[in-house]
Amino acid sequence: MDIKAFQDYYPDDVAHCYGCGHLNDQGLQIKTFWDGDETLTRYTPEPHHTAVPGYVYGGLLASLVDCHSTGTAAAAKYREEKRSMDSLPALRFLTASLKVEYRKPTPLGVPLEIRGRIREVKGRKVVVDVELKAQDAVCVTGQVICIQVPEDFLK
Amino acid sequence: MDIKAFQDYYPDDVAHCYGCGHLNDQGLQIKTFWDGDETLTRYTPEPHHTAVPGYVYGGLLASLVDCHSTGTAAAAKYREEKRSMDSLPALRFLTASLKVEYRKPTPLGVPLEIRGRIREVKGRKVVVDVELKAQDAVCVTGQVICIQVPEDFLK
Repeated sequence: MDIKAFQDYYPDDVAHCYGCGHLNDQGLQIKTFWDGDETLTRYTPEPHHTAVPGYVYGGLLASLVDCHSTGTAAAAKYREEKRSMDSLPALRFLTASLKVEYRKPTPLGVPLEIRGRIREVKGRKVVVDVELKAQDAVCVTGQVICIQVPEDFLK
Repeated sequence: MDIKAFQDYYPDDVAHCYGCGHLNDQGLQIKTFWDGDETLTRYTPEPHHTAVPGYVYGGLLASLVDCHSTGTAAAAKYREEKRSMDSLPALRFLTASLKVEYRKPTPLGVPLEIRGRIREVKGRKVVVDVELKAQDAVCVTGQVICIQVPEDFLK
């Protein structure tokens, strides 16, 4: 895997996302990497990320699925354009639609592994399928439709 | 509206949820009330709940939709059983499926209004439709399938 995460390439003016911005010091600061044709984020929730005692809060899991996917979408688009992630113009994606299925309670206190598979790259749209595991069990699955942010939106 | 929110009725042993538990002092502590046949949560995101500068983080919006809905599901079930929310046994719901559509960017720095409509109460399942507004504009819609937590799960 690369040493530098997708999120480390985000330009400073769009690196404040609570889930994945490296400049948000109160945020989750998730880090996503290529692992073959899949993308991988590892994240260990904090003790206060509780649903009911002993289990991870569903909103945090949705947040992980979300930011893992927007990062994956950007990486997929750079790859499609055969560009490195530090080339310009920078590509950022926002979430149009997020769907999360909670298949079993996710235990708190262990590292989580979030994997993305790119279902579709079509124009400004990228669709990502996500699987989240704890202790090798699939706890959550999701599908995220990401839309490339217009350049003028970010100015 | 009642003075006491749905979440204030949650028993202490299940009141640690990051989104809605009144005992999670690092959490969002959202408060939901009946407003006629709809349910209503008002929440103002913190400055660090950023997506791109000026807009609210999608994972936080998903979290608000989520906890608003599990609270709504509990209230709907109590109402169906013609019981007050402080009667026993306590009813709690977890999220089985969360779907969120981001219809327009949600501005940061203003109060958000989250409304729930109960689509279905059937056995242990409650389906809630959610609309989230900022400055009277619908920014997010969602649908959440909530499942009543088995009593032995909470012991």
